[in-house]
Amino acid sequence: MNVDDLSSKTGEWLRGEGQLADVVVSSRVRLARNLAEYPFLSKASPSERTEIYRTITEEIAAASVIDDELLVDIEDADPIDRQFLVERNLISRNHAGGEGSRGVGISRAETRSLMINEEDHLRIQGLRSGLDLDSLWQEINDIDDRLAERLAFAFDNTLGYLTACPTNVGTGIRVSVMVHLPALKWTKDIERVERAAQDMRLAVRGLHGEGTEAAGDLYQISNQTTLGQSEEDIIRAFRDSIIPRIAEYERAARDALARHGESQLDDRIWRAYGILKNARCISTEETQTLLSPIRMGIHLGRFQEFDINTLNEIFLFAQSAHLQKMHQQSMSGEQRAVARADYIRSRLAE
Amino acid sequence: MNVDDLSSKTGEWLRGEGQLADVVVSSRVRLARNLAEYPFLSKASPSERTEIYRTITEEIAAASVIDDELLVDIEDADPIDRQFLVERNLISRNHAGGEGSRGVGISRAETRSLMINEEDHLRIQGLRSGLDLDSLWQEINDIDDRLAERLAFAFDNTLGYLTACPTNVGTGIRVSVMVHLPALKWTKDIERVERAAQDMRLAVRGLHGEGTEAAGDLYQISNQTTLGQSEEDIIRAFRDSIIPRIAEYERAARDALARHGESQLDDRIWRAYGILKNARCISTEETQTLLSPIRMGIHLGRFQEFDINTLNEIFLFAQSAHLQKMHQQSMSGEQRAVARADYIRSRLAE
Repeated sequence: MNVDDLSSKTGEWLRGEGQLADVVVSSRVRLARNLAEYPFLSKASPSERTEIYRTITEEIAAASVIDDELLVDIEDADPIDRQFLVERNLISRNHAGGEGSRGVGISRAETRSLMINEEDHLRIQGLRSGLDLDSLWQEINDIDDRLAERLAFAFDNTLGYLTACPTNVGTGIRVSVMVHLPALKWTKDIERVERAAQDMRLAVRGLHGEGTEAAGDLYQISNQTTLGQSEEDIIRAFRDSIIPRIAEYERAARDALARHGESQLDDRIWRAYGILKNARCISTEETQTLLSPIRMGIHLGRFQEFDINTLNEIFLFAQSAHLQKMHQQSMSGEQRAVARADYIRSRLAE
Repeated sequence: MNVDDLSSKTGEWLRGEGQLADVVVSSRVRLARNLAEYPFLSKASPSERTEIYRTITEEIAAASVIDDELLVDIEDADPIDRQFLVERNLISRNHAGGEGSRGVGISRAETRSLMINEEDHLRIQGLRSGLDLDSLWQEINDIDDRLAERLAFAFDNTLGYLTACPTNVGTGIRVSVMVHLPALKWTKDIERVERAAQDMRLAVRGLHGEGTEAAGDLYQISNQTTLGQSEEDIIRAFRDSIIPRIAEYERAARDALARHGESQLDDRIWRAYGILKNARCISTEETQTLLSPIRMGIHLGRFQEFDINTLNEIFLFAQSAHLQKMHQQSMSGEQRAVARADYIRSRLAE
């Protein structure tokens, strides 16, 4: 299996199914681990970095923690392939744009991604469509156990797992749930959600994590600290309280829009559709912005021109690297804008 | 014939035909006249105003200068009817919103409109689709002659015709040509046109004259002075020089856009179409703004979804008073926005 094998389908995180799928796009659980016998990456020499990379990739293969595994050497990878993996949420922007020996192991279904030499030596990630944290945690925990049999992870009896960034010290867990909050954004109540999240020491970030915009009104809600709480406590809080409450709040805002501003709501949905169906050049950002009201419209049963799967495919494949892989060539920004509009029109003409 | 009889068709000024019709929407020639035996309106008492109104309307009828005449008493007219006449360019905004005895005589084809007690006692207007100033001037001149046999107009041997506003003193003629300049607007070269016009003592105004915006990139080019030039000189300058040069300039800008920014040009045209075809609420201003690139697209042969007649009908009938007459009821701004979007969608679904 190679990167191109991924490019014909949507991947796990945009499958559009699962619990609370009208608001929750996907769930992610990530564990940060470092090898005890090597320094953190900021202190590691290039040769140590290469040794870490080799050691971990060998043990991942030996432990068979990835089914039908795809191991991508990010250092050697084509820039379009790197960007492609970012667009599929399989590696971080930092990982794509970093330097030195690094790579990622990905399962065929794109439910698992193990980043090697990102910020930590190893980051074990699980991804699921919708809200599905329990099975995700079991799976990641199992991978962690199996790798721990082969790799000595840096661990302190008082602090727990040691990580490159102090905020990850402890369990090393980060739970992130991607939620679609167009109504809260529209009514500006999103600011109240952000303040409440801050009080609860939660981070609210954009589509591609830290420092990125909430393109398409997609927000990542994640825990900011991992010290002093068990993994199960954090998972439970997200599953039973944090995410259901945000979903409820968003649903109430959608209902209010439908009750008090029906024409404006439909107007926003249909104009977005009209532009996507007719534009001759369009950016990724505008595409994602326009897909947002349509995504809401589909979930509210107000829009039936196409379904959520088509929307998610357009969302994913209209991105720059996906487009260039589709055309099997490197393209300028202007060429991509035209090719993106062409692709969207052809999808919507089906 | 009454006002409602006009409401089923487009009228002369949006017929979309005539010379240079890809740039020139319509031509207008207006003469300002005042009765010698009465003071200007600013000094006239209400009873004098009423006498002026009665005298002129009687003589218009007696002289048969309007075929199948429609005489509208603007003072008594329903506000929607007044606005309706403004939207059809048959009376000015000032005439609609003024006070006291006033009215307008309109020919069935809407090629003639005689405003009584607007700024002057009488304004004789002729309207034609495209650039057609010669026959227009002959016609208006003939009406003026026939009325002059029955009415004594204020005239000074040195100054010429006396008018309420000094800028009209002399011949009292105003030539206005409505031009569509989307490419010059887009490339910002419109500013050079405006500066050149100023140097030539021409006024560049918006759709509904003085102080109005150039909605839909429609500009009225008109002479600012009437003193010291014969009517024929002014007509000739517009016909042979001013308007052909502006049209040439606009055409060159359109060609340049088509050559150097084909995708951007088509993008603008098709997005406008996509929004009009899908919006659920829309303002008059936005409608006219969106129709502008489509109007250009039709003339450039780049857009064939509907023709210029349909476009002109939508332009006219999507306006507030036209919409309310269509629905035979007074509507709030919000109701109109929804009804306008419904009307446009139904026209574009044909």
